[in-house]
Amino acid sequence: MSIAGKLLLGQDQVQGQGSSFQAINPATHTETGPVYGSATQADVNKACTLASEAFGSYRRTSPEQRAHFLDRLADRIEQLDEELVTVACSETGLPAARIQGEKGRTIGQIRMFAEVVRTGLWQSPTLDSALPDRQPLPRPDLRRSYVPLGPVAVFGASNFPLAFSVAGGDTVSALAAGAPVVVKAHSAHPGTSEIMGRALQQAIKDCNLHPGTFSLLFDKGLEVAEQLVTNPAIKAVGFTGSQAGGEALMRLAAARPEPIPVFAEMGSTNPVYLLPDALNTRASEFAEGYSASLTMGAGQFCTNPGLLIAIDSPQLNSLIDEISQKLDVTESQTMLTPGIYRNYVQKVDKLLSKKDITVHTSCKSAIAANQCHPMLFSVTSELFLNDNSLGEEVFGPSAMVVRCKNLDEMLNLTRNLEGQLTATIHCQPKDHDSAEALLHELELKAGRILFNGFPTGVEVSHAMVHGGPYPAASDSRGTSVGSSAIQRFLRPVCYQNTPETLLPQTIDSKNSLNLRRLQDGRYNDQ
Amino acid sequence: MSIAGKLLLGQDQVQGQGSSFQAINPATHTETGPVYGSATQADVNKACTLASEAFGSYRRTSPEQRAHFLDRLADRIEQLDEELVTVACSETGLPAARIQGEKGRTIGQIRMFAEVVRTGLWQSPTLDSALPDRQPLPRPDLRRSYVPLGPVAVFGASNFPLAFSVAGGDTVSALAAGAPVVVKAHSAHPGTSEIMGRALQQAIKDCNLHPGTFSLLFDKGLEVAEQLVTNPAIKAVGFTGSQAGGEALMRLAAARPEPIPVFAEMGSTNPVYLLPDALNTRASEFAEGYSASLTMGAGQFCTNPGLLIAIDSPQLNSLIDEISQKLDVTESQTMLTPGIYRNYVQKVDKLLSKKDITVHTSCKSAIAANQCHPMLFSVTSELFLNDNSLGEEVFGPSAMVVRCKNLDEMLNLTRNLEGQLTATIHCQPKDHDSAEALLHELELKAGRILFNGFPTGVEVSHAMVHGGPYPAASDSRGTSVGSSAIQRFLRPVCYQNTPETLLPQTIDSKNSLNLRRLQDGRYNDQ
Repeated sequence: MSIAGKLLLGQDQVQGQGSSFQAINPATHTETGPVYGSATQADVNKACTLASEAFGSYRRTSPEQRAHFLDRLADRIEQLDEELVTVACSETGLPAARIQGEKGRTIGQIRMFAEVVRTGLWQSPTLDSALPDRQPLPRPDLRRSYVPLGPVAVFGASNFPLAFSVAGGDTVSALAAGAPVVVKAHSAHPGTSEIMGRALQQAIKDCNLHPGTFSLLFDKGLEVAEQLVTNPAIKAVGFTGSQAGGEALMRLAAARPEPIPVFAEMGSTNPVYLLPDALNTRASEFAEGYSASLTMGAGQFCTNPGLLIAIDSPQLNSLIDEISQKLDVTESQTMLTPGIYRNYVQKVDKLLSKKDITVHTSCKSAIAANQCHPMLFSVTSELFLNDNSLGEEVFGPSAMVVRCKNLDEMLNLTRNLEGQLTATIHCQPKDHDSAEALLHELELKAGRILFNGFPTGVEVSHAMVHGGPYPAASDSRGTSVGSSAIQRFLRPVCYQNTPETLLPQTIDSKNSLNLRRLQDGRYNDQ
Repeated sequence: MSIAGKLLLGQDQVQGQGSSFQAINPATHTETGPVYGSATQADVNKACTLASEAFGSYRRTSPEQRAHFLDRLADRIEQLDEELVTVACSETGLPAARIQGEKGRTIGQIRMFAEVVRTGLWQSPTLDSALPDRQPLPRPDLRRSYVPLGPVAVFGASNFPLAFSVAGGDTVSALAAGAPVVVKAHSAHPGTSEIMGRALQQAIKDCNLHPGTFSLLFDKGLEVAEQLVTNPAIKAVGFTGSQAGGEALMRLAAARPEPIPVFAEMGSTNPVYLLPDALNTRASEFAEGYSASLTMGAGQFCTNPGLLIAIDSPQLNSLIDEISQKLDVTESQTMLTPGIYRNYVQKVDKLLSKKDITVHTSCKSAIAANQCHPMLFSVTSELFLNDNSLGEEVFGPSAMVVRCKNLDEMLNLTRNLEGQLTATIHCQPKDHDSAEALLHELELKAGRILFNGFPTGVEVSHAMVHGGPYPAASDSRGTSVGSSAIQRFLRPVCYQNTPETLLPQTIDSKNSLNLRRLQDGRYNDQ
């Protein structure tokens, strides 16, 4: 039995004694799966103490041991049967194909981190030789390596029940960095979380690692989050979710006697700029791609393109008509949770009640529980700048077109945008001067800038940046997707005149791990 | 005339209209140099607006342009005449040789950053090729480069009037990153600050850069700090100083509508561990080195070794006697400011008033203004753990010896230490098992770990880490000394399917800057 409604504290399964809750199948609006009991303060303390105890040995596992563990975890997830898909679909309303695809992505992500750990790409060992005869003072032997910050608390996202949840990007990058992890499961998909948590438990057992390397907590409310982030054993936080949620964690972390970093990915409106010659040249192709990106997964992606910015023209009106027609014939989709659905309806209603805003799609009533319809609005750039609420993220398939008079207005609008995960420019060669001016503004606003594509679909690779200036992310210097995600959980340590036998292998004199190292300002393989 | 008592706003010099103040010569306890007027809110706004205006062009200077500017700045500082030394000595009480040495270090540091910018070591360009035929989805072309966060506010330190002040490490690493800088000068050395600020103004003019690339503000009180850190144009903060000062800036930065990172280096007690065989083998050599390090510069270094931890023994008593004798015959030194002197006396008096604490040095009265005597105390490990105030930094030449019963007590004590800039282990080969156990604890507590040396003296190099877990620094992932300091002010941007003509040079297809780049997970020169 993979689902027992239990907390996972190290290798144990424990009945939570706090308030009980059950997952809700959003498609049927009925409860599903076992009853979960929330973790108590004692459970949180236990998980954190275990993580703290595991840290000493886990952080000193060799790269090969750690990579092997991650590979084993990937195998364990690969071996999960149809139960995972059935449970995840019932808890999220997502189609089976999406869950299957996300399972593959989750496994691929774990194997990539195993490879990154093996190759030592993340270590950047740096050595400066002693200069005993240097005047006026000798230089000591200095070598820099990295250590993990300590146990990490991870908060899973509702919209990626596998890839950004219990064994998702934050957890796996922390484990790759050498940090034990305590996950607070998203209460919308506890069964999915438990299945993935048990796969983690098994991989830890397979590899004979300290049981405290991973624990999984459930909570109906918000107490566990607060207890976890304020626990002295926790040294960093990974979070994907709402701005309000991320900001609450940031406040808690900053108010600790020892403040800790919070890596919160909080969402974005992801502006898409359509420049004039691109609009002239390929309006229909754009309309097709844009509406598909906007409605994919019921618009429940952090990179959903909720803002379309263009220079006003008759062609823009035609494009808006074309997109609206596509949206109006798009089938309604079940949203992830009743709460997300309620929030979507409220935000759309708020927009519908505004003066001077044009509604381009039909307004339909829901035909079944928690089903949303795509929406398209438009406003002038002037109005948009005067009403901050028009720039707020609507989580779901709703988009706002902003009509600018000219490029200057478009640039000015851009300067006034908040930080974004992505920004997209559609342009033809004739638009390149405008695109360049826009690019210079967008580099200061977004973590990823795309050309002639759509922002949904985030590649797991070395060059990926999934993050951005506040409030897209709490710390714009990190990414929560791709191999650099590991860096968030590491800090440098400099070793001065250290006896050879005491040096970490990464920076020993014979380079026994055969790493690429910066030696006196030059790479050792140059 | 290099000193006019003026704020430097871009290329202008302006009389501050706020409260006026003058530097104090701590050796004579009399006012020295011109009267400075504090900056007003309008001056702060002006400096920040200028920085914001300069950012657009300055961040896009080529590596060669930026390196040339830094070299020019080094030249300008090199050309400064004896006035710099005279003014700095009168404002700090430091001897001329120290100021001369620090001038050399400051110039060397600037030239190192010029070299780092030229070689692109800081860029780590990363490219993932498009895979148009990949199944189930093609991979886009992804390339990652870095952009500066935006204008940086820098707060100079009292104890390094050149190397960590107006044209010091924080300023120069921000300029190297492509960020304009607004410096709030330390009010203890306004004349020194103005001379260095004028050198910066000149270098900016020489290189025809935007005047807003640098401004210098003075303030008698704390208002300018608050106005600067809360100004929306400022995107990051560099600070070296007290824990109270750093924490105040952290709170201000976290409470902004758009929170910004604060890189505060806040000091440390820098524990030195003397293991038994090292104590047996070379007590006198250790006593010599330790007392020299403790009293160097009147103990006013963030890396001052204020804590000596050893296993209790008759040999330890002899060592304490030997160190005390050296400290008792050390000449009194003038402290940097009357405030620092007052604080030192208060903290020492507080320790003197404690029960169960042993005082090993003689208590002398000051023979001249602001002159301090070195102090040595000892306590048991048990007492130390029960009274947190014994572990607080005493800024000045005062040290606490902690007597442990055995290695376990030493390890337990270490686990209970706060974050440190440095930790030092003195050991002989026979001590290596104990040293290894200690090292594993200290890696989690300190930014730099030294063996058989003393922590004062911070090398400016690639492998240096001057930072550490809280409260040594606000963000343990950064360093404020060495070439990696530049990373603090940068964030990654990913460019997806970007037309060749719009790509930054660092990641263009022909690698026109000839940089070392990670291409599809392998380095291009491998």
